[in-house]
Amino acid sequence: HSIVLLPGDGIGPEIVTQARGVLEAVASRFGHEFAFSTHRIGGIAIDETGDPLPAETVEACRAAAAILLGAVGGPKWDDPSAKTRPEAGLLRIRKELGLFANLRPIKLFDELADASPLRAEIVTGTDILFFRELTGGVYFGESGSSGEGDDETAYQSMTYSRREIKRIVRMAAAAARERSNRLTSVDKANVLEPSRLWRRVAAEVMQEEFPDVNYDVVLVDAMAMHLINRPADFDVVVTGNLFGDILTDEASMLPGSLGMLPSASLGASGPGLYEPIHGSAPDIAGKGIANPLATILAAAMMLRHSLSLNTEAEAIESAVAGVLADGLRTADLARGGVAAVSCEAMGAAV
Amino acid sequence: HSIVLLPGDGIGPEIVTQARGVLEAVASRFGHEFAFSTHRIGGIAIDETGDPLPAETVEACRAAAAILLGAVGGPKWDDPSAKTRPEAGLLRIRKELGLFANLRPIKLFDELADASPLRAEIVTGTDILFFRELTGGVYFGESGSSGEGDDETAYQSMTYSRREIKRIVRMAAAAARERSNRLTSVDKANVLEPSRLWRRVAAEVMQEEFPDVNYDVVLVDAMAMHLINRPADFDVVVTGNLFGDILTDEASMLPGSLGMLPSASLGASGPGLYEPIHGSAPDIAGKGIANPLATILAAAMMLRHSLSLNTEAEAIESAVAGVLADGLRTADLARGGVAAVSCEAMGAAV
Ligand SMILES: CC(C)[C@H](C(=O)O)[C@@H](O)C(=O)O
Ligand SMILES: CC(C)[C@H](C(=O)O)[C@@H](O)C(=O)O
Repeated sequence: HSIVLLPGDGIGPEIVTQARGVLEAVASRFGHEFAFSTHRIGGIAIDETGDPLPAETVEACRAAAAILLGAVGGPKWDDPSAKTRPEAGLLRIRKELGLFANLRPIKLFDELADASPLRAEIVTGTDILFFRELTGGVYFGESGSSGEGDDETAYQSMTYSRREIKRIVRMAAAAARERSNRLTSVDKANVLEPSRLWRRVAAEVMQEEFPDVNYDVVLVDAMAMHLINRPADFDVVVTGNLFGDILTDEASMLPGSLGMLPSASLGASGPGLYEPIHGSAPDIAGKGIANPLATILAAAMMLRHSLSLNTEAEAIESAVAGVLADGLRTADLARGGVAAVSCEAMGAAV
Repeated sequence: HSIVLLPGDGIGPEIVTQARGVLEAVASRFGHEFAFSTHRIGGIAIDETGDPLPAETVEACRAAAAILLGAVGGPKWDDPSAKTRPEAGLLRIRKELGLFANLRPIKLFDELADASPLRAEIVTGTDILFFRELTGGVYFGESGSSGEGDDETAYQSMTYSRREIKRIVRMAAAAARERSNRLTSVDKANVLEPSRLWRRVAAEVMQEEFPDVNYDVVLVDAMAMHLINRPADFDVVVTGNLFGDILTDEASMLPGSLGMLPSASLGASGPGLYEPIHGSAPDIAGKGIANPLATILAAAMMLRHSLSLNTEAEAIESAVAGVLADGLRTADLARGGVAAVSCEAMGAAV
């Protein structure tokens, strides 16, 4: 299995190194061979090649079985008038590989239960699987500007096609069948034309192909509320790119530990891309204190979704639960006088 | 002072009636004259005139000193293929009256402290004033559709001009000066062209006109997180229409009582529009159990912002605090065996 590593910026290299170590342990324990190759993306790619996603990176990704990404971005490349930025690399690789579905599981860790900012009686039982559409919507709409002085105007078009809506709704509905058989679609159909198409097409898909799945729709503003006051009521949630960006980040606070949450970006075929949902954390980069668990859990998702190695994925997940049960905590998780372990120590323990 | 009442749909008429009663009490106590007139908006206007915002309503609003709105919408008018919908009335009145700034204070009520879904140590001290841009952005962008079959595509353009950004940032920055002198601007400048213009123009305004105000920028997805895990860190927050819709609704959960939150929509001049932030709650409409306090607090905002009657506004606000201290609770607020009072009883008590 050839695996492309894209460490990226900030803490990216540190956390990817630990995840690689875990994958190597899996390989030797279960008798697999993983061939790793490392490539550039993001700010470091801009610095070294002028392009946040060099062509050779894309080629390597296309040829791989799966891709493990650290994080991209940082203040160094934040100049709003810069020609290109690290995030452009991330957006382009999603598009180039057709990774239209971003899966983000939001689940509480029993060991970290008191870390949630929400009261226990509200957050207990939360277990949501988000499907965020990742290669359409306003992110990839036509953009530009016109006018001068006070009339200077910038625009970007929010766009969805029936095809784009169908395939993500189908993927989410199929996942719902494997879980509690409930799907919630989130839109802003009372205001936005693409949301009205989304709502119509989603309803058709559900009626025709998934009549057995319990299905409802919620407006994005209402969903932003529900995630705070009744998060345990949701199972699988499907939504567009921008709404998914905001809602999954909101939801990521519920477990109280951003450092624990992985994500997977999948296409119809070809390699999937796996990454922690947290960013490049430039403030702690190079200090060796980052939490590698989200990246390690992303590696587990990779084994499951791209390599069909379910037992191996579960082995990683229970190893993570195990080190937490043993009391190991990186700085972001350490509470009440517990001494924090380093990124490397945490990776080694897993 | 001529005041237009727009009760609208669902619980709208019930809550507006109570707010009117409170305004009448203010008039007689402080020796003012308020001339009320009631007009149609939303679903009821569609039913009776075919138009969610009849011309006579717009005219009456233009001639008024201020406008008090209940709520619009309901399942009756929710058909996604309907020609028009109640929300269209709301969007149009904002636009027609140039109400470009939506002010939403989010503040905990001591009396309801344990109602928050957030843990007390996180939510304590939260006191945010949102400025949501209300007449621009994707809400009012060009929209349409094209293509057929799987290629059928719908779009709507997210647009901001320098003029639109300047005036809302100025209003928010001026408000920050009257509070803790801190302003946070929220955008998605790493992806969206209109957000990049927003970020550039906001920085210019702040540098040139408000160098004394502490200013920072946060991405919308990060802000969705911060509102949950460190809401007390923010003072005044300014953002675009769609982001404001989502973030203010998210933030509205923090006090744990949607029924307590008012909002004001203001233009450069002319009448302001005041309303509760909650919706028309069709499930409890007509039962006499709705909470009128948000609408009553909206009436207080109206006295302050449109009629410059600060003492009178404070009188309403302390009356609301008083009835809460007396233990009165409508059904939405009643906890642990407290008997709920009716909408009318709550209004009368205030
Ligand atoms: C970095 C940025 C472009 C990206 C996004 O908004 O998609 C990030 O926030 C994410 O959610 O993966
Ligand atoms: C009803 C709807 C059009 C409206 C909006 O999204 O602006 C509402 O959600 C609000 O926030 O006032």
